[in-house]
Amino acid sequence: MPDRFTATYRIETAHSLEEAAEAMAGEQSSGTFIDVPGETASLRERHAARVESIDPVETVDEPSLPGTTPPNGYDDPEADDLEYVRAEVTLSFPVENVGRSLETLMTTVAGNLFELRYFSGMRLLDIDLPASVVRAYPGPDFGIEGTREVVGVYDRPIVGTIVKPSVGLSPGSTAKLVGEMVDAGIDFVKDDELIADPPYSPVEDRVAAVMDAIDEHTGANEEVMYACNVTGDVDEMLERHDRVRAAGGNCIMVSLNSVGLAGVVEVARHSELPIHGHRNGWGGLSRCPQLGFDYEAWQKFWRIAGVDHLHVNGIRNKFCESDASVISSARECQTPIASEDDVVMPVFSSGQWAGQAADTYEALGNTDLMYLAGGGIQGHPDGPGAGVTAIKQGWTAALEGIPLQEYAREHEELRRAIEVFGEDE
Amino acid sequence: MPDRFTATYRIETAHSLEEAAEAMAGEQSSGTFIDVPGETASLRERHAARVESIDPVETVDEPSLPGTTPPNGYDDPEADDLEYVRAEVTLSFPVENVGRSLETLMTTVAGNLFELRYFSGMRLLDIDLPASVVRAYPGPDFGIEGTREVVGVYDRPIVGTIVKPSVGLSPGSTAKLVGEMVDAGIDFVKDDELIADPPYSPVEDRVAAVMDAIDEHTGANEEVMYACNVTGDVDEMLERHDRVRAAGGNCIMVSLNSVGLAGVVEVARHSELPIHGHRNGWGGLSRCPQLGFDYEAWQKFWRIAGVDHLHVNGIRNKFCESDASVISSARECQTPIASEDDVVMPVFSSGQWAGQAADTYEALGNTDLMYLAGGGIQGHPDGPGAGVTAIKQGWTAALEGIPLQEYAREHEELRRAIEVFGEDE
Repeated sequence: MPDRFTATYRIETAHSLEEAAEAMAGEQSSGTFIDVPGETASLRERHAARVESIDPVETVDEPSLPGTTPPNGYDDPEADDLEYVRAEVTLSFPVENVGRSLETLMTTVAGNLFELRYFSGMRLLDIDLPASVVRAYPGPDFGIEGTREVVGVYDRPIVGTIVKPSVGLSPGSTAKLVGEMVDAGIDFVKDDELIADPPYSPVEDRVAAVMDAIDEHTGANEEVMYACNVTGDVDEMLERHDRVRAAGGNCIMVSLNSVGLAGVVEVARHSELPIHGHRNGWGGLSRCPQLGFDYEAWQKFWRIAGVDHLHVNGIRNKFCESDASVISSARECQTPIASEDDVVMPVFSSGQWAGQAADTYEALGNTDLMYLAGGGIQGHPDGPGAGVTAIKQGWTAALEGIPLQEYAREHEELRRAIEVFGEDE
Repeated sequence: MPDRFTATYRIETAHSLEEAAEAMAGEQSSGTFIDVPGETASLRERHAARVESIDPVETVDEPSLPGTTPPNGYDDPEADDLEYVRAEVTLSFPVENVGRSLETLMTTVAGNLFELRYFSGMRLLDIDLPASVVRAYPGPDFGIEGTREVVGVYDRPIVGTIVKPSVGLSPGSTAKLVGEMVDAGIDFVKDDELIADPPYSPVEDRVAAVMDAIDEHTGANEEVMYACNVTGDVDEMLERHDRVRAAGGNCIMVSLNSVGLAGVVEVARHSELPIHGHRNGWGGLSRCPQLGFDYEAWQKFWRIAGVDHLHVNGIRNKFCESDASVISSARECQTPIASEDDVVMPVFSSGQWAGQAADTYEALGNTDLMYLAGGGIQGHPDGPGAGVTAIKQGWTAALEGIPLQEYAREHEELRRAIEVFGEDE
C-alpha cells in the first residue's frame, strides 16, 4: 500500500454525494471521463485518489456558485426545486503522484477541481502535507523563536508599524520616519506591500538609508527589525536580499500571492534573513465562503516553502474578516505542521491599537505574535513615540489582567490613545 | 503629469459609489484610514490612484459576499433593507508606483482591495498594462505564429491530445502511447497537469523516451510538438527545460497558478522553447462572479510574463464554463496587448471532439487555436488514429461550411465518432 496524504474540502452539490466525491477523486488522479486503455486495475490501485469520508453539513435551496449541472440535466422540470447539500469530504492521494513537489501538490489538491460541474461549492479546508514534500523544502528558518532572538523581545508581542504613506516617500523620508519610530521604541518596521523597487525609492537606496537611520537611533543593546519589501522577479529578489544583508538589514518582505510558490521557495532557499510573508490578494482566494481556500490549508504551503511571518489581519480590523477567523488563522500559524520548528509568527495588522490587546491575548492565550499598527502609532495625538508606548501599555494591561480604562488612569499615552482611537470601537 | 495605467473592476456596494471607489483608490495607493503627516498634497498629486469612471450596472437585494459593513453600521434598523449596487469602476494609477514590476503591479491592482469592507463584490475585469512593465518582460517568444512554424500546420487548428491516464504511466508506456498518437497523425501531445516529475516517471526519462518515440514514428517532413510538464521549483524547471531541449524536445508546460508569476517569468527568460501555460486553479480565482478575476485581466499577466499557449476550456466543455465565456477568453488570447507579436494560442480542451469544430469556428472566425481531445481521440471506437482523423474531418467540414452529418456520410471515422460522442451533445 503506497503512502498517502489527505485533503479535506467543503463541497456543495445537488448530485449524490458519493458520485460527486468520486468525480473529484477521479479528476485529480487517474480517472478520465471516458475509459481509456491504459487505466488498468493495477494502475488504479496504485495511483487513484480515494474518498476517505463524506460528512453532510447542511442543505441549501440555491446553488452558491453558477455553472453546476442538475443531476437530470437542465431540462429537468424539477431542476428549480433541487436541494444543494454541503458536506465535508476527505480525499486521500498517493504520495507517489506528487513526488516531493509543492507545486504539483498544489495542482493536485487545488487544480481543476474548482471547475467541476458537479459542484456549486468547492473549498479546500485543510491538507495533511506528506513528509516527502515537507522534507524537500526549507521551512521557516527563523519562525517564532528566531524572530524573537533577532529583536530581543520575549515576554510580549513584537510591536511594529508600517511605513505610511504606503507609496511616494523617498529613501531619505522613509529613513527619517523609521528613525522616529526607533526613537519611539518600536521593535519592527515594515514597508507597505505597495512599495517594492520603484524608481523614486530603489531597494538599494532605501535599505541603506533605513539601516543607517536604525543604527543611528538604536541604543547599544537594541535591535530593530526592518522588513524591506524585495518583491519582484526571482533574480531581483535574490539580489535585493543580498543588498539588504550587505546593508546590515535583518528581514525581507515578499508579497506571496503576487510572487507565487516557486518564486518564494527560491527566495527562501537563498535567504539568510527572516521572510515576512504578506498575503495581499488573499481576499480573492477566500472571500466567497463556498470557493477557494481556508487559511488552514493555504498557510501550510507558504510555511513549508520557508516563510517566517504570515499576516492574519487583526481583531476588529478595517477589512471584512471576523475576529473568530483572525484568531483561528493565528492559531494555525502557531500549530506545528511536521515539527515544533515550523511554527511562524502570526502578524496582526489592520486597524490595530492598544484597544485590541486584551481581546487578542484572551483569545489567543499567548504573546507569540507581531502586533502592527500604522495609524494606531503614527496617528497618535502626541506623536509616534506616544503611539508605541500606548500599545505596549495596552499589552502590559492585558498581560496583567487590568482593564484598559483602569490602567489608562496612570498611563497618559494610553489614556490619550483611548480618547482618539476608542471612538471607533 | 506622470504616466498612468488603468484597471477596471466590477464592484458591489451598499455605500455611496463615489465614497467606495475613493476607498479603493486610497487603499491601493497613497491613502491611509487616518491622516498621517507624510501624505502631503504634492505626494498625493504624484502618487495617488484616481477614480476615472463609475458606471452603475444593476442593483441587487442581497450582498454577494459576506463581511461588508452597512453604511450606518450593523445596528442600523434598516440594514436588512439595503440595496447593493453593482458598478464598473475604472481606477488609474501612476506608473511610477509600480516601476517595471509585474508582481508589484499584481499587488497594486489585485491585492488588499478584495478585503475592503465597503464591498460585497470586487472583481478585476481588465487592466491596461503600462509600457514600462511590458518592455521589462519576455512576452511570448513563439505565440501563434511561432507555434505554427514548429509543427508546420497553418491552415487549420493544431490538433492535440493529452496523455491519459493522467498519472501512473511509466516513461515507456507514455512513449508507447505518444508513438500511437504520432502514427494517428497528431500535431501536439501534452502531459496532464497532474504529472510533473514523480518518482515513477522523472522528466529526464520521460522526455527521452517520448522524443525517441516521436523520432521513430514521424515522417521526414513531420514535426510533432510534445509539451513536457516541467512544473516544479525554479531551479528544477530550468534544469528540466535544458533536459527537454537536449532530448530534442520542443515545448515545456507549466502550471501557472501553482508556480506563480515570478517563477514563470524566470522560466520564460531562460526558455528557448514554447511555453504551454496550464491554468489549473483558475476556477478558484474566477468562479464566484462577484470576486476574483475576469480572464481578460488574468491572461495579460501570463502573456507578458512569456507564456505562448493558454488554456481556455472549450465549447460544451465538461467543466462549468459557458460557451460565451470560452469564446471571449479565446478572443482575448488573440488580441494584441502591446504589439502584434504578443498574441498567444488559445488552447481548447475538455470534452472536445469533432462535434464542436463548427461552433468553435463560427464563434471565433479563425483557426488560430489548439484543439485538444483526450477521450475524444483515445476513446474513439476504432482507435486513436481514427480519433485524430475524425477531428480533422470535423474541422474540414467546419471550414468548408458543410454540415457535420452530411460530411460524415463519406467519412467513416467522423461517422463513427458521431455515433459514440454525439450522444452527449
